[in-house]
Amino acid sequence: MPVANSQISLLPALSAVLGPSGLLTDPADIAPYAEDWRKLYRGRAAAVARPADTAQVAAVMRLAAAAGAPVIPQGGNTSMVGGASPTEAGNEIILSLSRLNRVREIDPLDMTMTVEAGVSLKAAQNAALEAGCMLPLSISSEGSAQIGGVLAVNAGGNNTVRYGNARDLVLGLEVVLADGSIWNGLRRLRKDNTGYCLRQLFVGSEGTLGIITTAILKLVPRPREVAVAFCAVPDAEAALDLFGRFQAHDAAAIQAFELMSGLGTEFVLRHIPGAVLPLAAPAPFYALVELATSRPNAGLRGSLEAVLEAALEAGTVLDAAIAESEAQRAAIWKLREEHSEAQKREGASVKNDVSVPVSKVPAFIRRATEACARLMPGIRAVPFGHMGDGNIHFNLEQPVDADPAWFLAQDHAIMDCVNEVVREFDGSFSAEHGIGRLKPYMMPDWRGGAELELMRRIKAALDPAGILSPGRVLP
Amino acid sequence: MPVANSQISLLPALSAVLGPSGLLTDPADIAPYAEDWRKLYRGRAAAVARPADTAQVAAVMRLAAAAGAPVIPQGGNTSMVGGASPTEAGNEIILSLSRLNRVREIDPLDMTMTVEAGVSLKAAQNAALEAGCMLPLSISSEGSAQIGGVLAVNAGGNNTVRYGNARDLVLGLEVVLADGSIWNGLRRLRKDNTGYCLRQLFVGSEGTLGIITTAILKLVPRPREVAVAFCAVPDAEAALDLFGRFQAHDAAAIQAFELMSGLGTEFVLRHIPGAVLPLAAPAPFYALVELATSRPNAGLRGSLEAVLEAALEAGTVLDAAIAESEAQRAAIWKLREEHSEAQKREGASVKNDVSVPVSKVPAFIRRATEACARLMPGIRAVPFGHMGDGNIHFNLEQPVDADPAWFLAQDHAIMDCVNEVVREFDGSFSAEHGIGRLKPYMMPDWRGGAELELMRRIKAALDPAGILSPGRVLP
Repeated sequence: MPVANSQISLLPALSAVLGPSGLLTDPADIAPYAEDWRKLYRGRAAAVARPADTAQVAAVMRLAAAAGAPVIPQGGNTSMVGGASPTEAGNEIILSLSRLNRVREIDPLDMTMTVEAGVSLKAAQNAALEAGCMLPLSISSEGSAQIGGVLAVNAGGNNTVRYGNARDLVLGLEVVLADGSIWNGLRRLRKDNTGYCLRQLFVGSEGTLGIITTAILKLVPRPREVAVAFCAVPDAEAALDLFGRFQAHDAAAIQAFELMSGLGTEFVLRHIPGAVLPLAAPAPFYALVELATSRPNAGLRGSLEAVLEAALEAGTVLDAAIAESEAQRAAIWKLREEHSEAQKREGASVKNDVSVPVSKVPAFIRRATEACARLMPGIRAVPFGHMGDGNIHFNLEQPVDADPAWFLAQDHAIMDCVNEVVREFDGSFSAEHGIGRLKPYMMPDWRGGAELELMRRIKAALDPAGILSPGRVLP
Repeated sequence: MPVANSQISLLPALSAVLGPSGLLTDPADIAPYAEDWRKLYRGRAAAVARPADTAQVAAVMRLAAAAGAPVIPQGGNTSMVGGASPTEAGNEIILSLSRLNRVREIDPLDMTMTVEAGVSLKAAQNAALEAGCMLPLSISSEGSAQIGGVLAVNAGGNNTVRYGNARDLVLGLEVVLADGSIWNGLRRLRKDNTGYCLRQLFVGSEGTLGIITTAILKLVPRPREVAVAFCAVPDAEAALDLFGRFQAHDAAAIQAFELMSGLGTEFVLRHIPGAVLPLAAPAPFYALVELATSRPNAGLRGSLEAVLEAALEAGTVLDAAIAESEAQRAAIWKLREEHSEAQKREGASVKNDVSVPVSKVPAFIRRATEACARLMPGIRAVPFGHMGDGNIHFNLEQPVDADPAWFLAQDHAIMDCVNEVVREFDGSFSAEHGIGRLKPYMMPDWRGGAELELMRRIKAALDPAGILSPGRVLP
């Protein structure tokens, strides 16, 4: 499909603003930006704009608004829901934030960091550590994911149980709006009640309301002690009981509490080189507990042992291994982090990123496993994820002898089956991955009525021409 | 002034919906609702609607929308900025949420509480404590302030340094919109990325975008140990240094870090019966530190002593008293909590609820004190408040022999003088009290351009007829 007429003059105008290195129009140059990392969304784009600073982002948006051209902001392109991928239409401009890549300032006393949208989460974490602080947000894609995208999708990850989601870490934002105007909300205040909380509207809006160009984030003290245990448990109920024990002992020390199924862990041991079970025998479920504190001489190891000993006596825990070194800690986390990769190597799988109240996780897993087994004999449930905040990746692996393509073609039926159970527990059909291009069709059913109407009114108020990430989030 | 024509039929319609006890139209009955607690705003209202549940709130809004009648939601009527007070026009309907007063559910495992808008903050705190948890929000007016108003204004208070502001505690909301439709966002999920974050738009909007009727709040474990110290320091710089020492030692244990001036504390000792300085000699400034933890055998008292000993040796702290009992703890807090009352008894005072980055607090206090002294010889600065989150109540007491009425008539000049210094430090002119009717005129200057334009678009999108708290927040 040829680009629209209005864009014939748009591309030279963009080139004039951005310079020769700032605009990619050759299909070969565009291609890496036009395909998502899971290769599920292969689209086409009219161009990739690569502005060097906020002023250039604003200039791009002014030109795009004048031409009525749709714009897709893109960071590290690590969306799980196709949020940053162009459609097949070929008329969209990809706006890459990658060149806005400076950590501008870190203040260890105020515990804040000012960081541009294109800095990778990993680079931001490292900069905070060097200043003696910690940016307490950790997700699998942190090496590639960029701050702008992380905030746009309100990323969650492993440490939400303690520090909340990305939105809980945002003090200030700078945002370029659909018409090219700039909102400078770069304040680093812990209290500021001066009108509507605009920053929280942009965080989680997935690029449909504005383009985040810079952020001021909260930091926390760098931990002085970290203790990690890998625990075999008889069932998910026991894992919840164990979580309750750690909560009762010292809730503030829990930095991660992850759940893995026996089968999913078996996949990791089978397919991932170097993966080793640190226990004598396999179990139906495993819990990974990470405690951390910035207190000196906190004796976290003692706390961990005391809670686990009581849990072993009560039969809540069958066996447990405590990491004795950084290498052992990494080996334990590897069993959790490689779950997605192992599932891929085992065969085709359908992903469900869902959440329920923490107390409902075991009942949800039981019911959803049964429901999927009724839907498709031989299907293999491999639930894992962030039990401490109720966010379970309820993934389904194809039956052993099934055709992968046939299995993947059933994805909507499988997702619907899981989501029916999620609904019974007042849960969410998208806990941390967002809506993107994958799930807008679910919005009317789940967030319909007054809620979707409110979202539509806000979208129309902030982007009346609908040029920012059209078709994403809202159906 | 007579009520508008459209309201002649509105009142009987409201009465039919709410029943005889649900609508107050007698001026004597209306009077207590039409005056704010500081007696700065004495307005008139057409009626006070007292709905019994969410359905009745919705019915009131449908009728008001049809009649084009302005509606002012009101909770405990404890606003510091006239946010819940009617104007002189007499055409506004006060919508009191007081009858929605049930704590619906507390889940100690999920650490959540479902509470209706009319429950007082104190009652909500007590209900959480009875369930073995804590609602970590504490403000001076907690005995009267109601949850709906607390969220509408995004209250801050003493524990923000650790737990954030009211908005950080909100998981779910139910809101009645301007047209009488109901948004049910009563979810208690720790992760839910399904579209725009509507709840954070209503929190802090001061009743101008919708009426909060029910909320689901996060709770935290009830502390097992609390330790409080009252410290004499030579200046505000030393207080900041002390804060840094506690942060470096164990930031997560700091539950409050309050600053008081020597003069403000002298007022308390002079005017408040029973107030006693727990130290041998007065000092230029005082810091109140409260540590708390839910860990068993945490030895907080030892931590407090260790940090204070090192600070005494360094000259950062001149003297300190550690509370040995609950009674001593209350006596120390009394010195802080009675600051406003003591200032009132000393004479006329002008209040400034401002914030700057934590690291700038001492420089701000120094500069603002100098600026006010230049503006008005003899004026007495009595800064106090939440140093740990940069929120200082920079209050100014009249010169000793000045006429109180004359002094109060200078309030705008005094506020402007303080705010000029706030601006130099990239601070906020309203940290926790909000905008209400007192400060909308400041908005164009401080939040003008793209920011105010965004707020106006959102207001128009959610309340196109402008019937919800008109004239509040936005100029």
